[in-house]
Amino acid sequence: FTEEPSDRAAKPDAFCSWILRAQPQGARKEGHSEFRLRVEGDPDNYQPGSTYRVTLYATNPAYFRGFTLIALKEGRNGEKEEDYAGTFQIIDEEDTQFMTNCPPAVTESTPRRRTRIQVFWTAPSSGIGCVLLKASIVQRKIISFQDEGSLTKRVCEKGKPFITKATDKP
Amino acid sequence: FTEEPSDRAAKPDAFCSWILRAQPQGARKEGHSEFRLRVEGDPDNYQPGSTYRVTLYATNPAYFRGFTLIALKEGRNGEKEEDYAGTFQIIDEEDTQFMTNCPPAVTESTPRRRTRIQVFWTAPSSGIGCVLLKASIVQRKIISFQDEGSLTKRVCEKGKPFITKATDKP
Repeated sequence: FTEEPSDRAAKPDAFCSWILRAQPQGARKEGHSEFRLRVEGDPDNYQPGSTYRVTLYATNPAYFRGFTLIALKEGRNGEKEEDYAGTFQIIDEEDTQFMTNCPPAVTESTPRRRTRIQVFWTAPSSGIGCVLLKASIVQRKIISFQDEGSLTKRVCEKGKPFITKATDKP
Repeated sequence: FTEEPSDRAAKPDAFCSWILRAQPQGARKEGHSEFRLRVEGDPDNYQPGSTYRVTLYATNPAYFRGFTLIALKEGRNGEKEEDYAGTFQIIDEEDTQFMTNCPPAVTESTPRRRTRIQVFWTAPSSGIGCVLLKASIVQRKIISFQDEGSLTKRVCEKGKPFITKATDKP
């Protein structure tokens, strides 16, 4: 997992640099088979110009709040507009939208718990070759307050006897 | 860390049950001193009816996107309205608001990167005793797409030679 996109990867002014920064350099985290990207019919090949339903889903009990979906020509890193292949179409605007700072990418309309999103993807015209559709999942991570620790402050009423708890540090 | 609030802790219909579920049962995670809750003047005692500036902040380079802030009478678990002590006042409505499903709690107005929030807290009237102000921090966790794995799908143009990459599974 990456906590938040770091500023170390792509050049800050590259096209769609934000989502590229979300991709850790060389880090490979396995074990997330509870999230899957599926292209309708599970094709190895696409017909140029054809449209396919693309689904991103989480297997119960997993779920996600946000996501990013892109389609790149094989071997491209996404830093140029021409690296992107085909076009997405939004099915449900309440659920998905194009990313304002990266127009070829699809993202969530609002962060909320979801187990599935779908969009259409129309394949590029002939001559492009292989395409990689890629998704990122965004979840929330909560650091909870504790009865001790830096996220809790205990204050007692002035003038009342200050009863020290056994766990209090002197 | 908890990934997301689980449904195992507080009764689902308890007052403010959502944020109580965010508190892990008995789990104590240390090492998050980069996030701190501070009451103006760092008092051990409060004057009944007095108002204090309360700050939640992250030490650079840490930051947070969301938070929850509550004030509980000592020994109470927050499942009843009378467990809460004093009242918060919003300083900047662009930044903080009361939680719609838990009115004594303060939360973020919009999720965005922040390193500090401030609210006022007015202490309860005389006779309440000790109060615990508690904060939870919310961050994003991103599961990035990989060139292999369940969040990436490779599709090649039909009719083009299918060049198998060395890493492809048969």
